[in-house]
This record gives sequence, C-alpha cells and structure tokens, in this order.
Amino acid sequence: MRFHIKFSYDGSKYFGYQKQPRKKTVQSELQKALKKINDNKRVYVFASGRTDAGVHALNQHAHFDMKINIKSENLCRALNSLLPGDIYIKEVKEVEENFHARFDVIKKEYIYIINIGEYNPIEKDYVYQYNKNLDLDSMKDALKYIKGEHNFKSFVKSEAKDIDYIRTILDSSITKTDDKIIISLIGTGFMRYMVRNIVGTLIDIGEGKFESSYMEKILKYEDRKKAGKCAPACGLYLKDVYY
Amino acid sequence: MRFHIKFSYDGSKYFGYQKQPRKKTVQSELQKALKKINDNKRVYVFASGRTDAGVHALNQHAHFDMKINIKSENLCRALNSLLPGDIYIKEVKEVEENFHARFDVIKKEYIYIINIGEYNPIEKDYVYQYNKNLDLDSMKDALKYIKGEHNFKSFVKSEAKDIDYIRTILDSSITKTDDKIIISLIGTGFMRYMVRNIVGTLIDIGEGKFESSYMEKILKYEDRKKAGKCAPACGLYLKDVYY
Repeated sequence: MRFHIKFSYDGSKYFGYQKQPRKKTVQSELQKALKKINDNKRVYVFASGRTDAGVHALNQHAHFDMKINIKSENLCRALNSLLPGDIYIKEVKEVEENFHARFDVIKKEYIYIINIGEYNPIEKDYVYQYNKNLDLDSMKDALKYIKGEHNFKSFVKSEAKDIDYIRTILDSSITKTDDKIIISLIGTGFMRYMVRNIVGTLIDIGEGKFESSYMEKILKYEDRKKAGKCAPACGLYLKDVYY
Repeated sequence: MRFHIKFSYDGSKYFGYQKQPRKKTVQSELQKALKKINDNKRVYVFASGRTDAGVHALNQHAHFDMKINIKSENLCRALNSLLPGDIYIKEVKEVEENFHARFDVIKKEYIYIINIGEYNPIEKDYVYQYNKNLDLDSMKDALKYIKGEHNFKSFVKSEAKDIDYIRTILDSSITKTDDKIIISLIGTGFMRYMVRNIVGTLIDIGEGKFESSYMEKILKYEDRKKAGKCAPACGLYLKDVYY
C-alpha cells in the first residue's frame, strides 16, 4: 500500500530534510518511526523535495510503501506518538500505487519572513533578523521581473552544472504586517538556494544597493555572481505543495 | 554607577532566570558578559523578579553597579556582542544609586498564549499547544472574579508558607486571533506559578470542567488543591515591567 503524508517541521532542529550519515535529519526521523510500525522492516520515504538545514516546512508532502493493514488515521496517530515534537504529521492518505510525491508536484509555495523591527531573540531561528527598514516599493517592483518563465541560472549555486535552469514563477507577493515583511513565491519548481538567492537580491534592492530594474538584467546574465546575497535559511518556509 | 537594563530572552534555552550551580541561566549569562566588560570583576545583576525554566521575557528589567567609565549605548552594544543570540539587551540607562529593579516595580504584565488550532511543531516551545477549542465566554466571565485585591493562596505552590498571599490584579483580558488565545494579566506583583495556575484554571473552565463562577470560590478556599492545573511554562511571557 502506498501512503501520502502531509507534515510540518521545525527546520532549526535538523540538518535538513534528506538523510545523511550520523546527522539528525527529518527523513531519518520519519524512517526510524516507520520502521517501528512496519515490523522492523526499512521504509523509504520520498518527499516532494529536500529542504536545507534550518529551513522550515508548514506543509511538506511525501509518500512511502508499506505492506501493512492499518487505517490512515491510526497510522497518523502512531507516527505522531513515535516522532519527536518538532515533526508533526498533519494527514495520512492511502493513495494509488502510481502517486509520486516528487514527480507529481504541480506547484509549490515558499514564504520568506524578514523582521525589519527590533532584534527578537525569541524568533531567532524562525525569522531573518534583518532589523533595519527596507524599501518595500522597489522590492515589489523588482519582484514583477521574475514572474513567468525564465532561466534562473543567476539564482542557483554556481557549482551546479548541466541542468535545465528554466523555471516558471506563477505568482509572487510581498506583504507587510507590523515589523515583518513576508515574501511569497509560487512556482512549478525551485532549484537549490533559488528562493534564498532571489530573497537576498530583493533585500539588496530594498536597501538601495541595486535599482529594482537590475532584477531583469540579473536573469539575462545567467551568472550567480551578478545576483545578490543568499538570505539565511531560518526565514524560509515550505508553505504548500500542490498535486 | 548604577545601570538599568531592559532585555528580552528565549526562555526555552535556559533553566530560568536565576543563577544556579552548573546550569545555563539568564542571570549567569548576563553576569559572565558583564564580568568581561568590568575588567574581570564580578557584577551582580538584580532583576525585577525571576522567571522559571521555559518562561520567556519580552521586556525584563534589571539593575547592576559597575565602576566604569562607559556610555550607556556603548555598554548596550558591548553586552549584545558578548551575549548569546537568545538574550538581547534592548536598552541601557544610567540611573540614580537608589533605583532598584525589584523593589521599585509598580506593576507587571504577563501574557499567556494558547494554540487552540492544529499542533504546530514550529511553535512548540513558544505557545502552549492545547490544540482543542475552549469556551472563550466562560473564560472571560471567570477572569472578572480575580480582578482587584485578593488572597491568591489557592494559586500558589502548595509548599509555599508564611508569606503574604494578598496581591492586586489591576487589569486582565482575553483576546483571540486566528487560532490563538492570549490571556493578559497586569498586577502589582505575582507569586511563583501564580499566572500559570490562574491560566490552568481558566483552561479547566474553558473546557467545561468548572463553572466560571467557581473562580470566586477557589479564591475563598485559600487551598491550592481546589484550583485547576498548572499551565506549561512555554506559553508564558513576561511582557512589561513598570516603574
């Protein structure tokens, strides 16, 4: 039987989603819990995609196969009782054998939260503590250039090679609430560091380092060195995955 | 010279405010940083009051004496550069030698945050994850009984003896935003566990275990066993101290 799970986690407690030797990761915690439920037999969990160390998930999705006679609700309860408090299974559904949590993704939403007010130690690992003002209008203006289909090579780790850098940003927004700026990006797919590099560049624009129209040029350069800094992991949340 | 500081901290990272042998506490971190600034001479920090392990502070206050020629802004900057990221000095002021951070308190505000929505692993240490609905109206109704001057013995740790249990609650409120209930208590002084025992009793009332009018009776009993449960530390914030 194939199960589809929706879950959230506190990324500050993990070395990212993906399993790594001798490191605490979300995948290894999930597989450890599932192995206990699955009569001590290994279960491999396929997520919609990785998240890096420190990045949070409000609604991550994954699938796995288990030969077990268990109701979805009971599997959900069993998993939550075995998992640490910083990972939470929100939903378990039995799905067709051809469902794939990674290949069937239609679109994803990431949000990035910036504190432009006073430093707040209580949100240290959950919001980027920028603690200075930013020009929201020029950031909003810059954001419109990345909407649509583009080659995002300038926003990808420079070592990455031989891959297709074309992605589509379907929707984006910047909102402000009290002392927080929230940037939302919805797209068909995101490459590693892509959201954080776009946000870092938006911050550079918001602090006046670049004109907002420079965003259009960066895309054309297809060169990571032309874009702005990489924003820290703690402000990034995988908000939703759509199938 | 006497200095008055205002600071915030993430209580989930500490065994409370007060210094204890071999334990990481807020006071010991402050005194360690001040000792470095004060030419390796010990500095004792007097706070407005203790907070227990796991309890957060948005605006805690303290004072200390140092024979040092330093501007308040520079002392603030030096402290923040020496302190860990989960304690933040918001303000340093030079004050008269007779100012006392504990004895001069006029009133204090505590807030308590309850998540009545779905469990959220990202706020695990910052909000009480109650995750069920509560009857807000009966909680609001119960809250009115504790306003004013009362003997709060029923809301204090049962072992506490030979102290004056009379305190005054000057103002209180319960507000709801999305999935959160925020309880605010402003009073002339609070005893250990008093806020958490009041909140725990309010939750018992909100879930229908007690009638709201039972709050009045609890006060009269002067017996800890008659009040409700003690709400967990993670939802409690010292919000403000007034001088």
